[in-house]
Amino acid sequence: MDRDAILLTPGPLTTTLRTKLAMLKDWGSWDADFNAVTAQLRSRLLDVVHGRDTHVVVPLQGSGTFSVEAAVATVVPRNGHVLVPDNGAYCKRAARLTQMMGRKATVLPLAEERPIDVAAVEAALHSDASITHVVLVHCETGTGVENPLAAIAAVCERHGKGLIVDAMSSFGALPIDTRALRFDALVAASGKCLEGVPGMGFVLLRKAILDGCAGNSQSLAMDLHDQHVYMEKTGQWRFTPPTHVVAALAEATAQFVEEGGQPARLARYADNCRTLVGGMAALGFRPFLAPEVQAPIIVTFHAPAHAAYDFKRFYASAKARGFLLYPGKLTQLETFRVGCIGAIGRNEMQQAVHAVADTLREMGIASGAPAL
Amino acid sequence: MDRDAILLTPGPLTTTLRTKLAMLKDWGSWDADFNAVTAQLRSRLLDVVHGRDTHVVVPLQGSGTFSVEAAVATVVPRNGHVLVPDNGAYCKRAARLTQMMGRKATVLPLAEERPIDVAAVEAALHSDASITHVVLVHCETGTGVENPLAAIAAVCERHGKGLIVDAMSSFGALPIDTRALRFDALVAASGKCLEGVPGMGFVLLRKAILDGCAGNSQSLAMDLHDQHVYMEKTGQWRFTPPTHVVAALAEATAQFVEEGGQPARLARYADNCRTLVGGMAALGFRPFLAPEVQAPIIVTFHAPAHAAYDFKRFYASAKARGFLLYPGKLTQLETFRVGCIGAIGRNEMQQAVHAVADTLREMGIASGAPAL
Repeated sequence: MDRDAILLTPGPLTTTLRTKLAMLKDWGSWDADFNAVTAQLRSRLLDVVHGRDTHVVVPLQGSGTFSVEAAVATVVPRNGHVLVPDNGAYCKRAARLTQMMGRKATVLPLAEERPIDVAAVEAALHSDASITHVVLVHCETGTGVENPLAAIAAVCERHGKGLIVDAMSSFGALPIDTRALRFDALVAASGKCLEGVPGMGFVLLRKAILDGCAGNSQSLAMDLHDQHVYMEKTGQWRFTPPTHVVAALAEATAQFVEEGGQPARLARYADNCRTLVGGMAALGFRPFLAPEVQAPIIVTFHAPAHAAYDFKRFYASAKARGFLLYPGKLTQLETFRVGCIGAIGRNEMQQAVHAVADTLREMGIASGAPAL
Repeated sequence: MDRDAILLTPGPLTTTLRTKLAMLKDWGSWDADFNAVTAQLRSRLLDVVHGRDTHVVVPLQGSGTFSVEAAVATVVPRNGHVLVPDNGAYCKRAARLTQMMGRKATVLPLAEERPIDVAAVEAALHSDASITHVVLVHCETGTGVENPLAAIAAVCERHGKGLIVDAMSSFGALPIDTRALRFDALVAASGKCLEGVPGMGFVLLRKAILDGCAGNSQSLAMDLHDQHVYMEKTGQWRFTPPTHVVAALAEATAQFVEEGGQPARLARYADNCRTLVGGMAALGFRPFLAPEVQAPIIVTFHAPAHAAYDFKRFYASAKARGFLLYPGKLTQLETFRVGCIGAIGRNEMQQAVHAVADTLREMGIASGAPAL
């Protein structure tokens, strides 16, 4: 039957009908009513990290990667030098966009199955005094590992280095408290743990560094300082905002608050993750990561060792049962991923595990156990 | 009563309910079903300009300005030199983003009440052989003037210069035929004359120049060559697409085809424009532009000379009657603008004129006639 599939993907994800219904209205992007939507949304985003006194939030059109690029372009001076501790695909992407825009970037290669090694980052800062900023991916969606944000922030503060955090997959779910940790910029997007639809990102900027950001960006569209100054003055976005996406995110953040904010969202996702991992384990599947470093956002599973396994067939069969899985992103190992985020709960996760069980049966695979 | 206002703005604009309803579904951005939506949309966009054999279309997240910046970054080599004939705000913006990204740009200042002077452009090309590309704004939304695309394209071809067209407000309404005119890149966006919702742009690139674009962009997110190569290989967007916006644009383009394509859309907008200008003239209002250079997209009107006129009150009163007007964008003259585009027809334009008449009465203004 024609029924929407559950998206077990790390964004876009399944949103509530209430969030989607907020898109059934055309807003004038110049109008005061829409400015009020933007203002309320910005204020709620700051509240998520208790940053109302110390930070501003600058929304930006485009996907999350646009906001990461904008954060680097805006915060890092042209002669800056960025250290990127690398334990996954999104770290590599951050390094690449930094180098492309002409900023110096040093990549610190680290094992992708473990959180970023804080001592290694500190050693790198010691060994090269020209480093001005660190870019940290909070939750590496490539594997699902949670990186030690607080510890890295403390190291950066101790060494007087700027910190840019890609919190794309963690914002709203994992705790981030600006009163307890210092960063210059923190980036997230609409279609992740806030459960909006994709189409915009946003960057939290520390007020103390704002003035120093003027003129850094070589991109007009991605100049967050300019976007901020204009928005403060007019209440409007500089260039046409994705009005329907903004309205959906405003509605989604209202539901976020109603649910109980970040602690409630984390509790639901953690329960989703436990339900998934437990159910999959009973089918023989093994997660790529050790449980203690697994963020409850997206789980990477080893592919089954069985000769009949083929991701395309596996995906198609699970999809026919109403669940969209996600391909792996590791280069060395065959894996697949399952998201725990979105407007879904224990019921959906249990049904997803049943769908995977039925899929294995259909494929003639007795166990999801990997080769190793 | 709580009823949606009609947006008489140049995008975001009023869309059909059918277009908005297409957003009530969450798509997996990796899934084959969504790839099919993207593929069909891209094919329809090429058909609008008869470009299927000679051009590709690369969609991009963000507002239209993001796509203009991406087109310049992708098409113009780092040592290129761009000529920007300037008869309005969007010309100035194109020049600014070109200079910010480090490409040389020469601005050719021209009168904003007239179309760009083709002879002046040709003289500029003659006088500086180092110019490699021209950026032309097809319809200057700042005033509403239509610039001579075909004549400028012919000049560029004759001189062996590349041409980048900002067709943001014209694409789908004014005729653009790739079989009759040569350009390297042509840029438009979802929330304009195709009557989708805002949140993505797209760039038509001539196939013959594609290979030469590799490595030009200093922006990862805005590298249209990279986006194109990836999309051709995988059917997917490189970074998270605004799935709901894409689905809405696909639905809007289906209605575009059903309506009769570009000729039918132009006919409706031209009728909207005639209805508006005629009705407003009867109230004393005078358009800023001469009728023969007025594109039927957005009309700039002189502000009334009457002492009681104040744009904020005028806007609020028209809004209370269900119509959102648009502020002027001229620096020297007081004006306001009224859009003729969106899912609206003669009925809405007549009602808009009635609302303006009632507004004048309420403000105690006997006539909309300007001072001059």
